[in-house]
Amino acid sequence: MASQKHHAYVPGYKQEHIRPHAWRTAKNSAAYLLPKLQEMSSKKPDLQLLDCGAGPGTVSASFAKLIPQGTVVATDLSEEIIIRAKDFASAEGITNMRFQAASIYELPFEDNSFDIVHAHQVLIHLDEPPAALKEMLRVCKPGGIVASRDFTGSDSYYPQSDLIEASRKLSKAVGKASGRTENIGVRLVSLAMQAGVSRSNIQASMSSWCYSTPEERDMWGGSMRDRLRSGGMRKTALEQNLGWTEKDMDDMANAWQEWIDAEDGVWGLMNGEVNITKP
Amino acid sequence: MASQKHHAYVPGYKQEHIRPHAWRTAKNSAAYLLPKLQEMSSKKPDLQLLDCGAGPGTVSASFAKLIPQGTVVATDLSEEIIIRAKDFASAEGITNMRFQAASIYELPFEDNSFDIVHAHQVLIHLDEPPAALKEMLRVCKPGGIVASRDFTGSDSYYPQSDLIEASRKLSKAVGKASGRTENIGVRLVSLAMQAGVSRSNIQASMSSWCYSTPEERDMWGGSMRDRLRSGGMRKTALEQNLGWTEKDMDDMANAWQEWIDAEDGVWGLMNGEVNITKP
Repeated sequence: MASQKHHAYVPGYKQEHIRPHAWRTAKNSAAYLLPKLQEMSSKKPDLQLLDCGAGPGTVSASFAKLIPQGTVVATDLSEEIIIRAKDFASAEGITNMRFQAASIYELPFEDNSFDIVHAHQVLIHLDEPPAALKEMLRVCKPGGIVASRDFTGSDSYYPQSDLIEASRKLSKAVGKASGRTENIGVRLVSLAMQAGVSRSNIQASMSSWCYSTPEERDMWGGSMRDRLRSGGMRKTALEQNLGWTEKDMDDMANAWQEWIDAEDGVWGLMNGEVNITKP
Repeated sequence: MASQKHHAYVPGYKQEHIRPHAWRTAKNSAAYLLPKLQEMSSKKPDLQLLDCGAGPGTVSASFAKLIPQGTVVATDLSEEIIIRAKDFASAEGITNMRFQAASIYELPFEDNSFDIVHAHQVLIHLDEPPAALKEMLRVCKPGGIVASRDFTGSDSYYPQSDLIEASRKLSKAVGKASGRTENIGVRLVSLAMQAGVSRSNIQASMSSWCYSTPEERDMWGGSMRDRLRSGGMRKTALEQNLGWTEKDMDDMANAWQEWIDAEDGVWGLMNGEVNITKP
């Protein structure tokens, strides 16, 4: 239980960090799973879905709305964030959800308990992703689906600026310092095979987030701006002497504000996905 | 008419180059346009769709199947490739298509002729994308849609190798030498605004190709392997002294074969998209 692999989610749960997480829904972040979920739900309306590392629970809640006769169990290592997820679901009037603090490495459920076991942008933060996939597979019913979606490390944006380029380097350095592995999204097939799954039971896909409307630019750029101005990114960069000064980060934050204000601003991020069928 | 901007499609039409193009369909390459196309087609079944720079015409043909009472006009600067597109459509038994060699800068159609004007991975090869968008807008009916999808320059793959990294550098250098602008996909909103469109008439999105099955790996990796072994990429690299020897390119081609053979091999490419409503 004291293993390094159970470490907390390093970036933490400040507003500027959680904002892009809370923007996420099943539609914008789990579209690759929805056809299968709908097919399964049409045959078995009381579907049992486990969402691991659910964070503020907005994706879990949208799953719950899609399977009103089913149940969604949302887990996260953090008690703090799982309480927020519970509050969010209550505010949305959702009654078919349960919440439990738990490590993805030691899920407090019997073998073969769930029809679908889902994790979104979770493996990317782990030291041992295949161990997590094995545990997800353990609690999944035979014939059920284990699904994961993670950032590939590939993104593109416009208009470009030297200061935003610098902030991307900083973000990667801070991510690395907090245990994030940038290219997990393109390694999901490999990781599933390392977890003992045969290739024929893995379906891979890619999908991208696109931030381009004023609201999307404010959500994404505002989060980056605020992490640079006063959030965990600034703190980590200074504490770990990553090479950027307070002034550097103020300048980068201002560059992000300019990007938010650019009417032709666009940001794209590519994510990898796997649907794994448990034999 | 002798303007530089009408230059031919430099990479040419050899089998190894066209293979990934001919893999494309409306479903895997124009999904962002399909909800709008279906909505328009349900109100007006005899939809007129223009596909510019249609290449081997597989995307155009799948549009034609989606609007059986409509008409798809496929154009390309090259007579050679448009004949192949015509042959492909005939072989598919498609009867609602017309074919015409034409420059996207000077489309041989009246103003306000088409309900949908589409170009896929075309702007990325042009010197003056806003001029092409203006011309597409000219032949589009008021209330119609001008749609474009282009590579952002962002891709990710696994397993990584130094030789494949070298071949990606080579591909970028050859692309640049043949006039390709890598990040057009993330600049589409900006280009449309340069063409005179107001931001409120532009809908931006991103979607990705994922090559992971044996067939997909063979299609993508085989094309790269063969361009390195004997295709235009090898020819351009040698003719333009881009810094790679024949032996380098043989080694890179072998690395691609290893990637094709890797059961856990995955390649993702992110594309930007715009649906522009003509006022």
